[in-house]
Amino acid sequence: MDKQALFHQIQKKSSFLCIGLDPAMEKIPHHLLKSADPYFEFNKQIIDHTADYAVAYKPNIAFYEALGPKGWESLQKTLDYIPKDIFTIADAKRGDIGNTSQLYAKTFFELMDFDSITVAPYMGKDSVMPFLEFKNKWVILLALTSNEGSNDFQQLEDASGKPLYQEVLIKSQDWGTEDNLMYVIGATRGNKIETARKLAPRHFFLVPGVGAQGGSLEEVARYGMNTSCGLLVNSSRGIIYASSGEDFGKAAQQEAVKLQQEMKQYLDLYCR
Amino acid sequence: MDKQALFHQIQKKSSFLCIGLDPAMEKIPHHLLKSADPYFEFNKQIIDHTADYAVAYKPNIAFYEALGPKGWESLQKTLDYIPKDIFTIADAKRGDIGNTSQLYAKTFFELMDFDSITVAPYMGKDSVMPFLEFKNKWVILLALTSNEGSNDFQQLEDASGKPLYQEVLIKSQDWGTEDNLMYVIGATRGNKIETARKLAPRHFFLVPGVGAQGGSLEEVARYGMNTSCGLLVNSSRGIIYASSGEDFGKAAQQEAVKLQQEMKQYLDLYCR
Repeated sequence: MDKQALFHQIQKKSSFLCIGLDPAMEKIPHHLLKSADPYFEFNKQIIDHTADYAVAYKPNIAFYEALGPKGWESLQKTLDYIPKDIFTIADAKRGDIGNTSQLYAKTFFELMDFDSITVAPYMGKDSVMPFLEFKNKWVILLALTSNEGSNDFQQLEDASGKPLYQEVLIKSQDWGTEDNLMYVIGATRGNKIETARKLAPRHFFLVPGVGAQGGSLEEVARYGMNTSCGLLVNSSRGIIYASSGEDFGKAAQQEAVKLQQEMKQYLDLYCR
Repeated sequence: MDKQALFHQIQKKSSFLCIGLDPAMEKIPHHLLKSADPYFEFNKQIIDHTADYAVAYKPNIAFYEALGPKGWESLQKTLDYIPKDIFTIADAKRGDIGNTSQLYAKTFFELMDFDSITVAPYMGKDSVMPFLEFKNKWVILLALTSNEGSNDFQQLEDASGKPLYQEVLIKSQDWGTEDNLMYVIGATRGNKIETARKLAPRHFFLVPGVGAQGGSLEEVARYGMNTSCGLLVNSSRGIIYASSGEDFGKAAQQEAVKLQQEMKQYLDLYCR
């Protein structure tokens, strides 16, 4: 999917909501455990109920990998079920030497046809480039994450006073463009999003950490939005586990609508 | 496996050789393509011919993942086939927020029973800790990798003049011990290994990049060895693709023996 198609969908749905499809056996409604493929059954109903309000779905690969080979089948079925106009993110945080990154890229972009994959920057340019060589596919590079451990290295300042995550933002803009490179920017701090936006004015940011992880959507929109929206804001647990009963699809829908309604306001206010 | 058992095996075999099990359809001998599970068949023969000379096997997960669900079956069969006294490394370079890292840890340590997994440090402490909570299991943390891109961020100096990879080495020693934490240290530069060894005198280092990637084994041993050896030196392509004919197992054995013989000398010289 290209940037224009993504922005078109954001405008059409008045939403920049990304939903994390992270099923877990101990959390999905009990009645699904009887089905042949509980993860797919769960995701299918989440998608059925939220596809009108979400512009992206983000399965975290760890959840599927944990089931062994059948988890990969659930993942593939889920991906195939997502409507083609919705952006898909393999949250895999891969990154390895060149020929290995190329294999990962083929796996997620060709074998599975995801639109994008999250990539860790630690191994540098030649670990990221192989992902950028696929037409209409995207790298979402970890810059600033929302967990406590982001303080350990991402915030470490270099000799010029720049934290590592800013070096990642600056240097990686030589590797890709606003048409194939996005960044993960943790949502827990408004001033950090403002700084990141100054450093990468036209790139999309994937923002985790709104909702369960406690970030403010208004702050994210105010400081992070650009003229093409430039934001995908993710919510996982707050939506997919809104109810543990048979009504989980409807409950997920209600939460998705709530976020979409709020997002609509911010699009009107800040996306100009 | 604990550190003592690993060192015992190193002494018994006079070897600190790790073999990368990275099969690829276009590279494994043609006659194997007819078998039901070419990757397992390939690995099985490599293991049969090299198990007396290697102390560790390291499947790079990308190669198996690229086959979809059946790749994970080949991986599991390979792992089950490796003799139990040989150290196993899931070269997966994972790392995510806490609950996700915990899932990855369960997948590789419980579902699949690997002894260790490679982990990327970018997301910091809480992304690494979940892997360290499993008894007799190991994290092999990326510190300094052997690819060109290691210059982009790993060598970036902070305000005190310390490159990032040194910060990783120093800070992470508060998270784990020499009994559950190793480091990836790229082999292409002897002085870097010397520095890393000073910063982490007692931890094991996994050293890629000897052979195909051009590092000198003698230099690695001279600067990197400690009293418990402290080194696992990996070779992949130089061993597993030593021949593309039906004699590939024997050819792999010859290359493994060559390295083991050289390693024996260095163990006598430097491991004291």
